[in-house]
Amino acid sequence: MIFSEDRIFIIVCSKATTAPFNLNDMPGSAGRMDLVCRFIAQSIFISHGVRKNSAAIAILKGEPDPPKAILVRGSEVRYMAPDERNVGGLIRKALSLKVDEKWLRSTPGIYVARKGLENVLSELKSAGYSIYYLREDGEDIRTLNFTGKLAFVLGDHIGLSEEDERILEKFSSGTVSLSPLSLQADQCVVIVHYELDRRDCRA
Amino acid sequence: MIFSEDRIFIIVCSKATTAPFNLNDMPGSAGRMDLVCRFIAQSIFISHGVRKNSAAIAILKGEPDPPKAILVRGSEVRYMAPDERNVGGLIRKALSLKVDEKWLRSTPGIYVARKGLENVLSELKSAGYSIYYLREDGEDIRTLNFTGKLAFVLGDHIGLSEEDERILEKFSSGTVSLSPLSLQADQCVVIVHYELDRRDCRA
Repeated sequence: MIFSEDRIFIIVCSKATTAPFNLNDMPGSAGRMDLVCRFIAQSIFISHGVRKNSAAIAILKGEPDPPKAILVRGSEVRYMAPDERNVGGLIRKALSLKVDEKWLRSTPGIYVARKGLENVLSELKSAGYSIYYLREDGEDIRTLNFTGKLAFVLGDHIGLSEEDERILEKFSSGTVSLSPLSLQADQCVVIVHYELDRRDCRA
Repeated sequence: MIFSEDRIFIIVCSKATTAPFNLNDMPGSAGRMDLVCRFIAQSIFISHGVRKNSAAIAILKGEPDPPKAILVRGSEVRYMAPDERNVGGLIRKALSLKVDEKWLRSTPGIYVARKGLENVLSELKSAGYSIYYLREDGEDIRTLNFTGKLAFVLGDHIGLSEEDERILEKFSSGTVSLSPLSLQADQCVVIVHYELDRRDCRA
């Protein structure tokens, strides 16, 4: 995969299922797949359009076949609408494919692979990305200078495991905080985009 | 209704249905009800909790029985999860009630009434709210000083009609812009909350 997007968001989903799931029960039996859908939609969509310079990666660690990573690239995606059910349908389709460590195209702009956090971050680091961890106790985003291609790692409603935090430390350029309140993952994505858009309207 | 929230968000939904709808087709036959659900969820939810000092009002102008207004109060809401299907189910229930001009309680924290934009804004103005219009060509939110109880009015994917803009002019304290990009309604809500949270973490 040749990553070229200016902004990539990565979420680690501790419970999200790794097999096709029921679209009517994404918060329940699919392990908070609703949260994954909102995260992807907010990474990619603006009003009446797509951020072609942004991508989202969801690392799914739930049963029955972890880990799997889903990649959604704004530059290539088609037939995706921002509603959870639509995004969920496309994830479900990707999860029906047989995977190995290489990114496999499921539908336009949507890929799936057998990858965990270490593998994904290693790939992004090799591609020249500066990797930041979004966490409440980090440095205020408004005080940081960002340059080059940026990747932001977020936890889900449970947060990153200690093991994943240790992996992230190896790759991370810093920890970034956004708000005095503790926010949902998709809200964090909206705010990072917003702060970067105000500085530089490339994405 | 005694409005006391520090922040109220109002969306005008030109096509959203005013009768019970199919939860599996919110973007289609329900007239972009998915957008309404995301707008409400972002007005109310933070990570692991609810903003007790925030409320959302959706003014639905679609067939077959317009207008109807749905009010969701963070201080009272229960049994609501942030996924679209859950919020949609609660809106659907409210739309099954027989309404008149008074707010009628449907489920905890969720009310419905026969109200259009003028009626809603008049009620908020009487309750002491400063009303702002969120639109791309407004004044930058970072240059504005806000005091007291705040209401923010947004259009949906189509935007406010000329008639609704004329109504809003009568009540508005100003027009506010957020981002150099044109954003979705729920993204605007996230950003307004964020900007206000950074100034004053009351909500």
